[in-house]
Amino acid sequence: MKRNPKEIFGQNVRRVRQQIGLSQEELAFRAKLHRTYISSIERGVRNVSLENIFAIAKALEVPPGELLKPVDSGG
Amino acid sequence: MKRNPKEIFGQNVRRVRQQIGLSQEELAFRAKLHRTYISSIERGVRNVSLENIFAIAKALEVPPGELLKPVDSGG
Repeated sequence: MKRNPKEIFGQNVRRVRQQIGLSQEELAFRAKLHRTYISSIERGVRNVSLENIFAIAKALEVPPGELLKPVDSGG
Repeated sequence: MKRNPKEIFGQNVRRVRQQIGLSQEELAFRAKLHRTYISSIERGVRNVSLENIFAIAKALEVPPGELLKPVDSGG
């Protein structure tokens, strides 16, 4: 169980991105962010702020709050 | 309808805080943040990041994702 907010967010972004079959490049393009930034977010090392949380959620076509929900283990 | 992420978050924080009868001072103390920072968050001018979103949600005893949900009008 990961409880760190940055890790929770990163794992959710990766999970949803893979579920809808996007590459990190494609997500980055959609969210108007850099691919290396997406990569570091998914590794759980970025303290992402509201504007980018919403931009990423829009790019992934999920409600922003979905990306903050606790993750089980796995992955 | 407010669509700006900072305004959505700020309005949700204020709404939940008032629902549970906390002052800005009490919320600030619980979340280990400054009262003036809470005030500016509620005014929708702060691009709050994951760590503080989770700290505020914990202080308000709601899931973090609740604070990112779209707000109606009012308020």
